[in-house]
Amino acid sequence: MLPIARACCRRLPASATPYLFTSARKRGFSSVSADSQVDDYAVVFSGIQPTGTPHLGNYLGAMRQWRRLQDMAGDEDKLLFSIVDLHAITMPQDAEALRSRRREMLAALLAIGLDPKRSTLFYQSSVMQHTELMWILSCTASMGYLGRMTQYKSKLLAGNKAGDLDEAVSSRLKLGLFSYPVLQAADILVHRATHVPVGDDQKQHLEFARECVTNFNHTYDQELLVSPQTITAPSSRVMSLRDPSQKMSKSSPNVRSRILITSTPNEIRQRIMSAVTDNTNAVTYEPNDRPGVANLLELTAQCSPNPTTPADVADLLMGGTLGDLKNACAEAVTAELRGIRDRYTELLERQGGKYLVDIEAAGAEVARRNAEETMRLVRDVVGLASLR
Amino acid sequence: MLPIARACCRRLPASATPYLFTSARKRGFSSVSADSQVDDYAVVFSGIQPTGTPHLGNYLGAMRQWRRLQDMAGDEDKLLFSIVDLHAITMPQDAEALRSRRREMLAALLAIGLDPKRSTLFYQSSVMQHTELMWILSCTASMGYLGRMTQYKSKLLAGNKAGDLDEAVSSRLKLGLFSYPVLQAADILVHRATHVPVGDDQKQHLEFARECVTNFNHTYDQELLVSPQTITAPSSRVMSLRDPSQKMSKSSPNVRSRILITSTPNEIRQRIMSAVTDNTNAVTYEPNDRPGVANLLELTAQCSPNPTTPADVADLLMGGTLGDLKNACAEAVTAELRGIRDRYTELLERQGGKYLVDIEAAGAEVARRNAEETMRLVRDVVGLASLR
Repeated sequence: MLPIARACCRRLPASATPYLFTSARKRGFSSVSADSQVDDYAVVFSGIQPTGTPHLGNYLGAMRQWRRLQDMAGDEDKLLFSIVDLHAITMPQDAEALRSRRREMLAALLAIGLDPKRSTLFYQSSVMQHTELMWILSCTASMGYLGRMTQYKSKLLAGNKAGDLDEAVSSRLKLGLFSYPVLQAADILVHRATHVPVGDDQKQHLEFARECVTNFNHTYDQELLVSPQTITAPSSRVMSLRDPSQKMSKSSPNVRSRILITSTPNEIRQRIMSAVTDNTNAVTYEPNDRPGVANLLELTAQCSPNPTTPADVADLLMGGTLGDLKNACAEAVTAELRGIRDRYTELLERQGGKYLVDIEAAGAEVARRNAEETMRLVRDVVGLASLR
Repeated sequence: MLPIARACCRRLPASATPYLFTSARKRGFSSVSADSQVDDYAVVFSGIQPTGTPHLGNYLGAMRQWRRLQDMAGDEDKLLFSIVDLHAITMPQDAEALRSRRREMLAALLAIGLDPKRSTLFYQSSVMQHTELMWILSCTASMGYLGRMTQYKSKLLAGNKAGDLDEAVSSRLKLGLFSYPVLQAADILVHRATHVPVGDDQKQHLEFARECVTNFNHTYDQELLVSPQTITAPSSRVMSLRDPSQKMSKSSPNVRSRILITSTPNEIRQRIMSAVTDNTNAVTYEPNDRPGVANLLELTAQCSPNPTTPADVADLLMGGTLGDLKNACAEAVTAELRGIRDRYTELLERQGGKYLVDIEAAGAEVARRNAEETMRLVRDVVGLASLR
């Protein structure tokens, strides 16, 4: 086994559930390794759907955290962020739209400050090793476990108003929708990620990825695959500005329900000023009773230059009106997104598009090399042919 | 779409179910194409498990037919034969044993007369495009259809003496065992095979591969993937010499139940002379009442230098004893396998093993190029990233 894989296996205490990656490192990862020749470094991996220009929810829930991880990472740490187009096709997609959205997402990741010299940005479909490992994991992954996972059910039910998962609906289920947690596990494991930043709704999938590690390592009696640690974002729930019971989403027909990271200051102001709240013209933080107000407090807190909480923001605005809150919120969001729109537009057009094409190629190359390193080990212990 | 893919789609009449590939060509394939620039050629694909040295059942059921197809094929036809190690791992495997068995199977295919200049021989795990296409097909393949397929159930039941597929057994089912027909479909479709020689027990899987073609082409509104035609062997059921109710198998603990293609003339004679028949010392062809005798007649007929049937062999031996039949059978089988053993041994040792290593690399290269041609088209219509 290569030193790199041994390093990852050895130095991660199974019980560590770091809130943020640097704090995890500070908690003494270096001291776990008994082998002084082994480099001590983290591999951060995460993926995002190619939804095109991201909205504020994508930004605050995932992308901004990726940038922070990048900024905190040491020179020896690896960061890989994938635009997961193979996952996107579990639902019907228009090919041309998928291509545009994938590239827009890439431009967005760069625009918010991911540095391609520091973070490897790549399209999942550029790295065949992901599906190769998926198949290998499939051979030790239990159907029973997959059947108990919930997300495929909610996707299935999205098109079914009656809301029950009857046999007729189940029989239309495509294999990809059922088996994609295995691909997701392969995404992580093929890069021997030690740390995976995810939203709350993805914790179940991380758990499954760890289950895949256990199954594989047990079957082949090797500590080869690395069990990834979850890095949970402090909060990732940004709600619709038109219906605070729903998450902010690109698929809502009402564009006023969301703020894109490329929205102009005017658009940001308009959408926040017209956000649905309630009839009490006072600022209090009551997430259950006043979800619309809580959402604006949440946004304001998350976009504050200094760390704060929605409750603290409410305290600060005590005695003020909802208008005051909306003003404060619009100001904070505008400040947070400042510059992104211009960079995004410029990046899409830089060198007539060639700049992004080059970033794609370079990212694919690095990710492929990294994945191939794992697969060489995997093929060896499984007994598959080595590629030359 | 490249001319090659168009050619395959256009020139194959949907209803043609050729018995043998050349007869299919003679039935007017050339005339189907309206485009005179389009080359008219067939792509034959089939796969075999890496079971190590094959037995007579593997040889008569599949391998010999592959050689015949090779000998009948025109210069413009492509032949690809894969040793499907990725399928093998749906059941537990020892890595070292898998590696040996894969190489032995390769030597066996060469020893029986497959010519690497004419037929592309390759290990499935050398060509990542197989699993890549599998994932894409998974996104349009129905769980319901897969659940109705039977083979995974019999594999599951193999370890379950009670014989019923209860919930406890089902929940231990691995995804790979359930989803492997999709990989099998990808094996065929990634090479745009027009003709697939298979045994009776694989017909259901060919049907499923055609279903995958329909689903994919319908979803992406393109006639891109090619619906393969089945080529059925005249007979592929060679039974155990110790228990004629069971197929001849490498997994039977009794070595006397089978003849390997590398068995010596002495071994062949001993095993056939001691084959289980029945108490009637006369030669008649009654497959239901006299399965042991029928099996020997079948073997004799299949190994005759001229085409004949078990019933005709029985007629020829009318009035003779079972000893006469066994003598005739041993003689025919010995003649059929003559030379294979020596070539096999020599091939495994040629150039200290380097010869086979080179064949592996060359086969992988050709198969990869062929698969990549399809995948470029597939990625394009699905909207995935193009690999450069």
